Amino acid sequence: MNPSTARSILVVGSVALDSLETPSGHREACLGGSASYFGVGASRFAPVQVVAVVGDDFPEAYLAMFRSHGINLEGLEVVTGGRTFRWRGRYGKTLGDAQTLETQLNVFEQFDPKVLPHQRRAPILFLGNIDPELQLRVLDQMESPHLVALDTMNFWITGKREALIRVLSRVDLLVLNETEARLLSEERNIYRAADVVRAMGPKTLVIKRGEYGSILFHEDGVFVAPAVPLRAVIDPTGAGDTFAAGLIGQLAQQEAPDFVAMKRAVLTGTVLASFTCEGFSLDRLCSVTNEELVARTASLAQSLRVD
Amino acid sequence: MNPSTARSILVVGSVALDSLETPSGHREACLGGSASYFGVGASRFAPVQVVAVVGDDFPEAYLAMFRSHGINLEGLEVVTGGRTFRWRGRYGKTLGDAQTLETQLNVFEQFDPKVLPHQRRAPILFLGNIDPELQLRVLDQMESPHLVALDTMNFWITGKREALIRVLSRVDLLVLNETEARLLSEERNIYRAADVVRAMGPKTLVIKRGEYGSILFHEDGVFVAPAVPLRAVIDPTGAGDTFAAGLIGQLAQQEAPDFVAMKRAVLTGTVLASFTCEGFSLDRLCSVTNEELVARTASLAQSLRVD
Repeated sequence: MNPSTARSILVVGSVALDSLETPSGHREACLGGSASYFGVGASRFAPVQVVAVVGDDFPEAYLAMFRSHGINLEGLEVVTGGRTFRWRGRYGKTLGDAQTLETQLNVFEQFDPKVLPHQRRAPILFLGNIDPELQLRVLDQMESPHLVALDTMNFWITGKREALIRVLSRVDLLVLNETEARLLSEERNIYRAADVVRAMGPKTLVIKRGEYGSILFHEDGVFVAPAVPLRAVIDPTGAGDTFAAGLIGQLAQQEAPDFVAMKRAVLTGTVLASFTCEGFSLDRLCSVTNEELVARTASLAQSLRVD
Repeated sequence: MNPSTARSILVVGSVALDSLETPSGHREACLGGSASYFGVGASRFAPVQVVAVVGDDFPEAYLAMFRSHGINLEGLEVVTGGRTFRWRGRYGKTLGDAQTLETQLNVFEQFDPKVLPHQRRAPILFLGNIDPELQLRVLDQMESPHLVALDTMNFWITGKREALIRVLSRVDLLVLNETEARLLSEERNIYRAADVVRAMGPKTLVIKRGEYGSILFHEDGVFVAPAVPLRAVIDPTGAGDTFAAGLIGQLAQQEAPDFVAMKRAVLTGTVLASFTCEGFSLDRLCSVTNEELVARTASLAQSLRVD
């Protein structure tokens, strides 16, 4: 898992301060955002450069934490006098989708992502869950990345469908949850939905199904991955971004990942995301050791074995 | 898959006439009931004897079909002047749980299952989804079966909880769906729910999750089985009973099935159930060839392979 020898990943997404209520408790203004979860998660596997924006209220301790993970912050814009993007959400007993109580876009409202000249040749680009118009703007600044991966959500599928479809035509790997896949494809059956979505561009599609695991659709076949059997979920925020981090992080360690490598990467994403769910914010993600990651991945792979 | 060399299975359950509405169409008074689906499904793997009741309105063609599958009907009581149990149900777009439109218990209301003397030594007993008091009455008539398996539903978990818990203490293998497992255990988390349910008696538990597959909880480990990727479901009625039929039918072919055999049996149940969903009533289940079953099982096992 030596990140320094892997291909470099550029991620664009949100860096946020989240206020969270779950059945396990609540936290005020803790670190959140797709680029935060993805960046920290992927930094375990590959060099990561973040393109994002925060206000000058953003705690220095979090910047230090990013740096301690080797994350390159040259592309993190700090707006003087600006306030960081804030989100407040609540999870019910089932720990399904969060109910958004408040969104303050703040500096994110005017965010115009800029890719620095030396970042334009990053071989891997992860377009985190932000406005597809911004995702397009970032993609336009890149010099033919080897792998473009994207995450999105219902809000953009419904509200910015055309822009999203435009960016999808240039994406190699798409990560969606089931509801999003159905909404995007307008198909209820998940296998038909996958056909429709892949016809929009992404050759490889991973449909996340929460506690039911995920399905990888690849040109060489389909792989059904189970979830990690968690007996307690503390806070599911960021699980999807962490899943993408493990998946893409592991892909970054290979020049030309094939179907088997993709399957292993899905298991790694699954395991990394399971750790995120075991603590508030990035608490558990930051504390995971390589030994824990390897042991849990082996145990997940074992649960798939028939013989 | 030669059934004649396998251990014999005694099944008690319902034989019904179902009227079904699904997004694919509707059918009036076609063959249904847990013992019908289970019996036909399991007869492919092992000798099956059915204990059930019908009225004299029950079509002779269905009896002939049962016989053509080698099913022993000595324990099928035909009540002269009685009407067969009838159920009318409707499935919505998602093909989730059916909405019951009408239930006519008819001859089932007075059903007092009798196990014939030569059937009491059957090595395997499947207690289909009927009143747990009837399940107990059948179990009391048996002479120490090697394997007792049971299916039940929300209706009995809520309405006959004490009797159900009494019968569960004598059950080896329990098949439940997720909602039922949560209701029975009063635990939302499925792994905790499994602990609670297994402490009630059944050492082996299979929790069915519909389109998400199933989880096998066994004393030697946990196995997460995917569902068959179906692009179209015509009628899910009887899928659960057919799952149990494939599972228990395959177990009947071995003297002392271990964890690996249990995992293979879960895949067989999964595949058999997928065929049931592809037609109304028992139509597709009756037409499946061994070649189709073997091919689909191989393909399902393949979708689990990482390397």
